[in-house]
Amino acid sequence: MKPQEYLELVRREQPLVHHITNWVTIGDCATVTRAFGALPVMAHAAEESGDMAGIASALVLNIGTLTPTLIQSMIVAGKAANKKGIPVVLDAVGVGATPLRNESADELLGEIEFAVIKGNASEIARLAGENVHTRGVESTEVAADLTEIARTLAVQRHAAVAITGAEDVVADAEKAYVVRNGHQLMGAVVGTGCMAASVIGSFAAVANGKYAESAAAALSCYGVAAEIAARDAAGPGSFKPALFDAIYALTSGQVEKIAKIGER
Amino acid sequence: MKPQEYLELVRREQPLVHHITNWVTIGDCATVTRAFGALPVMAHAAEESGDMAGIASALVLNIGTLTPTLIQSMIVAGKAANKKGIPVVLDAVGVGATPLRNESADELLGEIEFAVIKGNASEIARLAGENVHTRGVESTEVAADLTEIARTLAVQRHAAVAITGAEDVVADAEKAYVVRNGHQLMGAVVGTGCMAASVIGSFAAVANGKYAESAAAALSCYGVAAEIAARDAAGPGSFKPALFDAIYALTSGQVEKIAKIGER
Amino acid sequence: MKPQEYLELVRREQPLVHHITNWVTIGDCATVTRAFGALPVMAHAAEESGDMAGIASALVLNIGTLTPTLIQSMIVAGKAANKKGIPVVLDAVGVGATPLRNESADELLGEIEFAVIKGNASEIARLAGENVHTRGVESTEVAADLTEIARTLAVQRHAAVAITGAEDVVADAEKAYVVRNGHQLMGAVVGTGCMAASVIGSFAAVANGKYAESAAAALSCYGVAAEIAARDAAGPGSFKPALFDAIYALTSGQVEKIAKIGER
Repeated sequence: MKPQEYLELVRREQPLVHHITNWVTIGDCATVTRAFGALPVMAHAAEESGDMAGIASALVLNIGTLTPTLIQSMIVAGKAANKKGIPVVLDAVGVGATPLRNESADELLGEIEFAVIKGNASEIARLAGENVHTRGVESTEVAADLTEIARTLAVQRHAAVAITGAEDVVADAEKAYVVRNGHQLMGAVVGTGCMAASVIGSFAAVANGKYAESAAAALSCYGVAAEIAARDAAGPGSFKPALFDAIYALTSGQVEKIAKIGER
Repeated sequence: MKPQEYLELVRREQPLVHHITNWVTIGDCATVTRAFGALPVMAHAAEESGDMAGIASALVLNIGTLTPTLIQSMIVAGKAANKKGIPVVLDAVGVGATPLRNESADELLGEIEFAVIKGNASEIARLAGENVHTRGVESTEVAADLTEIARTLAVQRHAAVAITGAEDVVADAEKAYVVRNGHQLMGAVVGTGCMAASVIGSFAAVANGKYAESAAAALSCYGVAAEIAARDAAGPGSFKPALFDAIYALTSGQVEKIAKIGER
Repeated sequence: MKPQEYLELVRREQPLVHHITNWVTIGDCATVTRAFGALPVMAHAAEESGDMAGIASALVLNIGTLTPTLIQSMIVAGKAANKKGIPVVLDAVGVGATPLRNESADELLGEIEFAVIKGNASEIARLAGENVHTRGVESTEVAADLTEIARTLAVQRHAAVAITGAEDVVADAEKAYVVRNGHQLMGAVVGTGCMAASVIGSFAAVANGKYAESAAAALSCYGVAAEIAARDAAGPGSFKPALFDAIYALTSGQVEKIAKIGER
């Protein structure tokens, strides 16, 4: 399916997208999900995270402000999602920065079957076994080819893998996409990375198993809206509300015209 | 009192409104409280939530991202508020979606005397004993008459009950109001429901026991500001800051002119 | 160094500024840090807060929504920061409002060596031993001279002390500064106080030990941006994104022209 077809499908089906995410960008994640036409819900107590996954159409797990308790709740929700057969997205925020993040990501990858694993270059490189260090939650230089790294992790984990950056790379075992949408202001705004995972989750909810394709579509639609928003933004402050406006008003015609997804 | 008189009173008295709320919209709840002229404080540790309620003029409890620990802290704060005689508002977010939410709401209703119980149609219907299911935190179709449901719960719990939606319904055992203010963009913006509870709490703080009237006034003033904000908003992103601007600048004259509160 | 020289240094060095902060303004704290050119990270689990401090250039501790568990994580992070020799900033939110806040602040001050202690007038007065009460997180009237209070606490704790308000006062054992930048809209916006601590932390990261000077520079640059942002803001809602835009675009020339730092 084309990216604009995914967009229309999200709006028509209004999937419920359950999140267990971080406290920094939790509001942004909910807002971007709603702006795209999906319905966000955030319920992090282990006593209900499985039940909430059981009524959702996708689950997004983001370890930005992880604690051991939160990771256990993610596992409960992830197992419930796997059992129900809905896609689970991992946003591997800060993997490579601390042992807790590395171990927690490994535990999640061991316990849950993910549809999409998403991160910046150094986060994904670390998950794929490269010896790189992430600086807090900021990507660091990765020497290896990003498409190769994405494909390696995709094969290891039977998942689609999305590496976000100036160019986004998405790969599964068979295919690889490069998405050339977005705007440099996104790098100056806290939350754009986490929001990308929410969009990937919203699109995965309607993807019928084609998770690499839906992730590329998600990143492209999100990037197209960012390009539109950046036209009138005076800086990172005005860019964020403009981004939500652009997403809410995004048309299939705009996506068809501006989307840049290449295959590798 | 008229809605604009409540507005003026909130601004003059600047009541301290204590919140134990969710992590998604906690910043929005504080911001809207401040924009109306009240003073927000958020302190969720059980070790101080009672002390903070003891210096506050109202308490708002929102179970959007509840945990069993947080519910216990709410009970401590609620009991302190009851003891002090200040109004307590419950925002029953997501009741009807999971057993934890249903049980936690029941526990709160059993332990605390609420001045106002607020929710969307399916949340309030569930609390009133109807067998409905909430989809995450989104309302679902409720067959019964909303005024009847509100009144039923009001009588059961000796509280004012507010059902928010395209039309807001507020009832206690004796009276019922319909508020026809607001704008459809509110439904596209995450946090507008939670913020309504903060406004209800701020107005309850100065209501001198007339909680159904003050809740209707709160929802009307909030809705009037939303109508003003929507005039120039390009979408949900620009609507939210415009809403805070409109609330901050809201005049008695605007409220008098635009407020639409009917009695049922 | 002049304030604009600190600004340039933050942008050039892009220090990683670790935060353990509150859930109300955590997104704002990250956003303002990023807008100034530093890199925010927020990691509150005790299992990693020390590791994250170990790769950071400054640490900001904010007790706005403290819990006993969070305080213990702050102590782990603070000790790691002290060991590494990076500056630690305390934002004493709400000290004077509840016993938990008073005791927790005392514990932090006893366990960690702070570079800068920041608060509003009643918070700092309380830490300095005055018998004042804070109203939630809002400052109350303080009878004593603020410069004297700041100096007293500075001497007691071997730290720079910053009192924010209409005029900001910064002092250490030797020097005292008054910063006369900022705008009254800041008082109507939730998060401006917490953000000030993030800016102080970002500037401290490049200060080479001159923490009173860097804190005055931070508050001045932040206040200059606020003055610029207020020019076109229609209220507190539009002011916040305008503030982030103004910070992001802030030039040395603007700071040189508008900064008002006096010595006392």
